[in-house]
Amino acid sequence: MKINVLTLFPDMFTPLQVSMLGRGLEDGKWDLNLVNFRDFTTDVHHHVDDTPYGGGAGMVLQIMPIKKALDSLPSTGKVIITAPQGKTFNEQMAQRWAEEDELTFICGHYEGFDQRVYDLADEIVSIGDYVLTGGELPTMSMIDATVRLLPGILGNAASPVEESFSHGLLEYPQYTRPADFEGQKVPEVLTSGNHQKIAEWRHYQALKATYLNRPDMLDGRQLSDEEKKMLRQIKEETE
Amino acid sequence: MKINVLTLFPDMFTPLQVSMLGRGLEDGKWDLNLVNFRDFTTDVHHHVDDTPYGGGAGMVLQIMPIKKALDSLPSTGKVIITAPQGKTFNEQMAQRWAEEDELTFICGHYEGFDQRVYDLADEIVSIGDYVLTGGELPTMSMIDATVRLLPGILGNAASPVEESFSHGLLEYPQYTRPADFEGQKVPEVLTSGNHQKIAEWRHYQALKATYLNRPDMLDGRQLSDEEKKMLRQIKEETE
Repeated sequence: MKINVLTLFPDMFTPLQVSMLGRGLEDGKWDLNLVNFRDFTTDVHHHVDDTPYGGGAGMVLQIMPIKKALDSLPSTGKVIITAPQGKTFNEQMAQRWAEEDELTFICGHYEGFDQRVYDLADEIVSIGDYVLTGGELPTMSMIDATVRLLPGILGNAASPVEESFSHGLLEYPQYTRPADFEGQKVPEVLTSGNHQKIAEWRHYQALKATYLNRPDMLDGRQLSDEEKKMLRQIKEETE
Repeated sequence: MKINVLTLFPDMFTPLQVSMLGRGLEDGKWDLNLVNFRDFTTDVHHHVDDTPYGGGAGMVLQIMPIKKALDSLPSTGKVIITAPQGKTFNEQMAQRWAEEDELTFICGHYEGFDQRVYDLADEIVSIGDYVLTGGELPTMSMIDATVRLLPGILGNAASPVEESFSHGLLEYPQYTRPADFEGQKVPEVLTSGNHQKIAEWRHYQALKATYLNRPDMLDGRQLSDEEKKMLRQIKEETE
């Protein structure tokens, strides 16, 4: 997969170039092309923004340098812009994007885009209900969530399908050494060696964590008979 | 405000050290203390993780190095961990955190934490319904959203209160030069010089963008008589 990013701050993108994603880049499993759209300005001061028509505080990012930067790419794939009015990003979106050959992200910074920039996008996506100084961090999160799903990126780490949101429940609690940490002990069942009991305990705990923290994730879920029984028990236990 | 981050990848945190947040650091308006908890391991190989009790794929981050790293700080303020089971991060949370003198974030990577690590946290916060390779990017987003609200960080840029989510509506469309881009023209009202009409147009457009893209943001909003009238017009216009 090739990912192009149009940004004023290519130096910000170090988080994608270390650890597993960085190894994936080195191994050619994906490709990151950072394009500074300031390089596509034509005025002597390389301005990328200007005052808003109609007045008001702040500046607005102009369409021209961004359009020229886009046009300079041999191909773009889907063009994605992060903005509060977009659909909220989620795991299903990452799974859908991971099927693409190429993606292009456009990052704003401090300021909003000229409205006509949004017309260049195939998808407008919101990272959540909060405001950031720029589109770089949300873009990196979206790239991370997408690229980690590509074959060969996670290596020996757990397969993506075993994780939260993929199977519709939060993860069960995990424990590792020491067995006793300042009096907080590992649940006995996990050291019992009884694999069926361990699997049942984990299923129960995943359902419990979801019921307590994210009951919305259970809406519309087809519960098995076993899960229905567990849920009755969880409700009794937590009442 | 002082922010401590416990992470295995301090080098990832460049995005917080450039642009406006970087200038804020230089000017002493906030302080970033990156602590690698691998430095607090006691074994010769500096392992921070171990296999999970009860078996299963993947590794689990141990509590010991994290607890020791926390204990090494003279003070921590609120301790925050990003995890899917947490409350979803939003602008109100950022506003609340911006009132604090100190915050400490703990970042996981690829793997989950030992369950007992969560007991060290004052708040467990989810960045959204998607999975990332590590807690660094969501932590940086939370720090960006919080620090930008501190006095003197945004400088001459628009004040945070004028933005999406702060006032309960999405932003109105902005335009800057050129007035005509490949036939796409700036709405006439914005070049009219009539400030009242411009303000009305912007209010209408903000309400319209919110109604079309994020109707949930209008739930429970006290609409003024003017807004009620606008909303009727928007419904007619978009039916």
